[in-house]
Amino acid sequence: MYTFQNDYSEGCHPAVLEALTRTNYDHTSGYGTDPYCERARALIREAFGCPGADVHFLTGGTQVNQTAIAAFLRPWEAAVCTNLGHIAVHETGAIEATGHKVVTCPSEDGILTPEMVRAAVAAHPDEHMVKPKLVYISNSTEVGTIYAKAQLAALRKTCGELGLYLYLDGARLGSALASKENDLSPADLPALCDAFYIGGTKNGALFGEALVIVNDALKPDFRYGVKQRGGMLAKGRLLGVQFEALFAGGFEDSAWLSIGRYENGLAQKLQDGIVKAGYPLLVRSPSNQVFPIFPDKLVEKLAGEFKFEVQRRFPDGQTCIRLVTSWATEEAAVAAFLKEI
Amino acid sequence: MYTFQNDYSEGCHPAVLEALTRTNYDHTSGYGTDPYCERARALIREAFGCPGADVHFLTGGTQVNQTAIAAFLRPWEAAVCTNLGHIAVHETGAIEATGHKVVTCPSEDGILTPEMVRAAVAAHPDEHMVKPKLVYISNSTEVGTIYAKAQLAALRKTCGELGLYLYLDGARLGSALASKENDLSPADLPALCDAFYIGGTKNGALFGEALVIVNDALKPDFRYGVKQRGGMLAKGRLLGVQFEALFAGGFEDSAWLSIGRYENGLAQKLQDGIVKAGYPLLVRSPSNQVFPIFPDKLVEKLAGEFKFEVQRRFPDGQTCIRLVTSWATEEAAVAAFLKEI
Amino acid sequence: MYTFQNDYSEGCHPAVLEALTRTNYDHTSGYGTDPYCERARALIREAFGCPGADVHFLTGGTQVNQTAIAAFLRPWEAAVCTNLGHIAVHETGAIEATGHKVVTCPSEDGILTPEMVRAAVAAHPDEHMVKPKLVYISNSTEVGTIYAKAQLAALRKTCGELGLYLYLDGARLGSALASKENDLSPADLPALCDAFYIGGTKNGALFGEALVIVNDALKPDFRYGVKQRGGMLAKGRLLGVQFEALFAGGFEDSAWLSIGRYENGLAQKLQDGIVKAGYPLLVRSPSNQVFPIFPDKLVEKLAGEFKFEVQRRFPDGQTCIRLVTSWATEEAAVAAFLKEI
Amino acid sequence: MYTFQNDYSEGCHPAVLEALTRTNYDHTSGYGTDPYCERARALIREAFGCPGADVHFLTGGTQVNQTAIAAFLRPWEAAVCTNLGHIAVHETGAIEATGHKVVTCPSEDGILTPEMVRAAVAAHPDEHMVKPKLVYISNSTEVGTIYAKAQLAALRKTCGELGLYLYLDGARLGSALASKENDLSPADLPALCDAFYIGGTKNGALFGEALVIVNDALKPDFRYGVKQRGGMLAKGRLLGVQFEALFAGGFEDSAWLSIGRYENGLAQKLQDGIVKAGYPLLVRSPSNQVFPIFPDKLVEKLAGEFKFEVQRRFPDGQTCIRLVTSWATEEAAVAAFLKEI
Repeated sequence: MYTFQNDYSEGCHPAVLEALTRTNYDHTSGYGTDPYCERARALIREAFGCPGADVHFLTGGTQVNQTAIAAFLRPWEAAVCTNLGHIAVHETGAIEATGHKVVTCPSEDGILTPEMVRAAVAAHPDEHMVKPKLVYISNSTEVGTIYAKAQLAALRKTCGELGLYLYLDGARLGSALASKENDLSPADLPALCDAFYIGGTKNGALFGEALVIVNDALKPDFRYGVKQRGGMLAKGRLLGVQFEALFAGGFEDSAWLSIGRYENGLAQKLQDGIVKAGYPLLVRSPSNQVFPIFPDKLVEKLAGEFKFEVQRRFPDGQTCIRLVTSWATEEAAVAAFLKEI
Repeated sequence: MYTFQNDYSEGCHPAVLEALTRTNYDHTSGYGTDPYCERARALIREAFGCPGADVHFLTGGTQVNQTAIAAFLRPWEAAVCTNLGHIAVHETGAIEATGHKVVTCPSEDGILTPEMVRAAVAAHPDEHMVKPKLVYISNSTEVGTIYAKAQLAALRKTCGELGLYLYLDGARLGSALASKENDLSPADLPALCDAFYIGGTKNGALFGEALVIVNDALKPDFRYGVKQRGGMLAKGRLLGVQFEALFAGGFEDSAWLSIGRYENGLAQKLQDGIVKAGYPLLVRSPSNQVFPIFPDKLVEKLAGEFKFEVQRRFPDGQTCIRLVTSWATEEAAVAAFLKEI
Repeated sequence: MYTFQNDYSEGCHPAVLEALTRTNYDHTSGYGTDPYCERARALIREAFGCPGADVHFLTGGTQVNQTAIAAFLRPWEAAVCTNLGHIAVHETGAIEATGHKVVTCPSEDGILTPEMVRAAVAAHPDEHMVKPKLVYISNSTEVGTIYAKAQLAALRKTCGELGLYLYLDGARLGSALASKENDLSPADLPALCDAFYIGGTKNGALFGEALVIVNDALKPDFRYGVKQRGGMLAKGRLLGVQFEALFAGGFEDSAWLSIGRYENGLAQKLQDGIVKAGYPLLVRSPSNQVFPIFPDKLVEKLAGEFKFEVQRRFPDGQTCIRLVTSWATEEAAVAAFLKEI
Repeated sequence: MYTFQNDYSEGCHPAVLEALTRTNYDHTSGYGTDPYCERARALIREAFGCPGADVHFLTGGTQVNQTAIAAFLRPWEAAVCTNLGHIAVHETGAIEATGHKVVTCPSEDGILTPEMVRAAVAAHPDEHMVKPKLVYISNSTEVGTIYAKAQLAALRKTCGELGLYLYLDGARLGSALASKENDLSPADLPALCDAFYIGGTKNGALFGEALVIVNDALKPDFRYGVKQRGGMLAKGRLLGVQFEALFAGGFEDSAWLSIGRYENGLAQKLQDGIVKAGYPLLVRSPSNQVFPIFPDKLVEKLAGEFKFEVQRRFPDGQTCIRLVTSWATEEAAVAAFLKEI
């Protein structure tokens, strides 16, 4: 049985496994103070053109989001995101557990616009309400769409005018930047965001995310927050070893980017085939998640052959499913799926 | 340069690395719902004689402690531990960050006694103070000592009388149970504790701890807490693979126990040699951490050859250092150290 | 200038002032353990027909809501309410500050229905999302509407089926129960809710709300929560003195109910006059808040003569304002307003 | 039966009651935006010589402490105080409930010294521990002692050197400043503290404390915190009316200071009589709380005639009790007590 269930169904990319094996018996200090982490930080600063940024490694996305947001905000300040935002829906209230409200804006395609941000701020005019202070976006979004450079720049401008931080969740940033439709350069991220994270877990690592803090005001004492929220790995070097392996060899030739290209290629083949076969999409995706809408009957039949998640059930006997590709997805899986429909 | 800095200075035990490598390309579902985790849970339930216990895998000790304590307590309930307790000192206020006070009892040897618990409860008689509800102990303790069965049973009795939960932090449980002075059987832990965790990070795993919840009242919905605190690993199987490797082959022959035996053997050789050489100890330890007190001059000299932590500086020109052994410590390191003093 | 700004623009009802003055020099113990509080609790248990309920006095609505919700829920459990819910909008994230998400359901008239509750629960099926556990309603609602007995009973049934607590915010319960359209008896509240609070601040007291906890499971140790959240008044007797004055003489003849009747009478006169004059309402209200929609020009003119809040601005040159009456509103104010339009 | 149980056993000072009665029917806006609050703020700024300070009114001490500390600190920052500190013992973990650890320093007389602060900071050197950031002191202290100007200035200096905020809990500041041994002028408080609060509840008000924020960095958005923690009174004017009454007529002639003088006079008479009668004191107090140590038998007998709290029981058949005087204590009570011993 082939799986399109998600991009974390396997272990890690061979380059990462090789690095972990090779370095296994080295002695280093703990908590991310080792030479692997230092080298990985340098590679990331170089790849993303932000020599002055702070880079912190954490083990997972929810952990990064809650640690960053809790560290960046004062108690009554809130995060703003779309109603599909991962922090709004799929993190079991992790942000609220740190004391902060998540204000949501309805969005069909997962993209947050300056108008939505302005409306959210306008709806919270005084101290009887929370104070929106951080804009949370995902790239690629929860439904596979990506931000164009102009869209991100417009958000940045709005955030600047309204005194908001712009924070980007890059759980699937590899897929986004590797997309054929992407026009963001790596250096645009630190230029436009106050902080963002570079996903490893969903892009070839065993686990791990790299948080990049660009805004100087957000840097001090951040390691206290990492430790306090349970995110400081004793063998922190594991994260350095992995990110070094993912970003070695220059950004364009990195394993990290090539994984994005590979999984996008398969996903687009899937999406094209589905469209050609006459099925609608929830939204057209240029990245490694695709969202076809099939008759319930077909979904049932497909479920016998492939693993995937149901995204949404419609009342008219149609169901939107989510298909995700990864570095480990085989060409044969795509071919089999397209044949089945 | 040899290191006695801690027991997480290297990657993982060869048996764990082999298992991770062997299973790397398998496809499984995420978040700990995979067959590896299932098998690892079964092995742990069998090894510790608790067929009805819930077993949850998390990535690190601070994370387990805060997730468990936050899930077990109502907002005004507090944890009680010694003044050396890891949660009281070395977790950057992680417990307080979930809203709970940590009440401490002075202890020289890291052992919490029923008298201390009774005194802590007696000092908090009404609703103007927090309500002690959970007793936190570590085995081995933060200074290497271990609980005798009679001590643990006495604590259990006290907790029962006072309506308290007994929670055991087993970051170094492998070293404790493998100690020559240990008289606790694995099955004593679930028999005497409401919950305890079995350390992996400091006992041969890349990372990972297994929380065992015995008390039925503490079981419901615990996975919500794991997700909310950022502790639910997407590739949760990594924890299952590792704990399966550590506990395969029966408890007595497990890699997990043999690691404890190995590191204890080296640590005891160190401690014996130090005592023979005429130096005092902060406390005599039967496990893998030893705490000799040396003249400052000697400490300075040793620091040129070996890595270790300073535990405490005394005003009289003496310093207590901490020496820790691990599965990766070489015999030669011990010999070199003893020669040096 | 007359004020319809809110129902807390003055001090307290004469009966309350008299009681505070009369008892000022008595000596009592603190923190609500005095005879006044005991008598007030007894009066409330009798008026609402719940001899076994616990009654706690706190100083304000936000404080009651956050103290109760934080005490009732486990960390990942959430409150469900309408998008107009006071806790969702007007409490500066007080509920989130205690760690809990507020899940909102769109509602035009402020009434929460069983269907909304079912949909909210259905949208949160597993541990990657918060777990809805408490249903929050206000009676009267934030837009002046009230719950019919059948509506409240239907919610109770749904909560029972889904394992949810039903919590009622009675900041304006006096106005609700005194409404001519009300068919709830006081005893219906403890029969149908797990907990509810009886508003004093907006119904004649200087300040103060009485939380009634009916569900035995929610009672233990609640005073710890009151103290921990800063809600335990040193001179707690002030709340007992006030509630005793408000509920003395039997429910039907109580100052508390008569205040509701009085302010409703004036508000209904306002509403009737406005409708007769041909202006639309945001929603028809049977209680002490009315929500007429006027042309912007008229609103501007009225603002020169009367104080009130703007509820919503429409793009077509119309504005909805909120007019609130209290025990201190004069007949002359209503007459002047109706004359002005 | 006479009471020395505490200084909040009665309603309010006649001057306060008169003001509340006189203003009861005035119409004002809510939440502390009324003219009474404005005037009270002006009186406080003048009395304490801090024209640029922000003044916020809250209803009780625990509420002020948790609101201020939660607003001032980042998540991992901690408060430092003596082991007698009200926030450390008697607030049911209110500070921890906002996520912050309270670090305690042993003190016999309730006075915190620069040495204690330095030791607390030195014991928390890195991100594995909380970061001490705010020094909390009470004046008068929990055992009635007061800070000399030189002591407060020394603490200020230490805080400056270590980058800490100095926060003073003035629940009984009236008694402290009115003490014959006091050498602090009102203007010394804003000159030496980053923030402090002026107690009303224990000094003649029905309830209420005035928080004075001097440090500009701590001022922004504080009202959000007040609302979020449940401390924003709807009829906020009640606090303005009371503090205006307490501080009218110039600091030296204010009701607030005269209450302190009156209660100190009685307490000192008590203390002198007790010492003359040959009984020891826990600590000599120059303010309105005194702590005599009596044989258990005498304590038992006194308990039949007077109300008071037990402070500490000694194993040798002696007990320390606490006697507190207030604006409402009668001379006759003091005479009766001294006669009884």
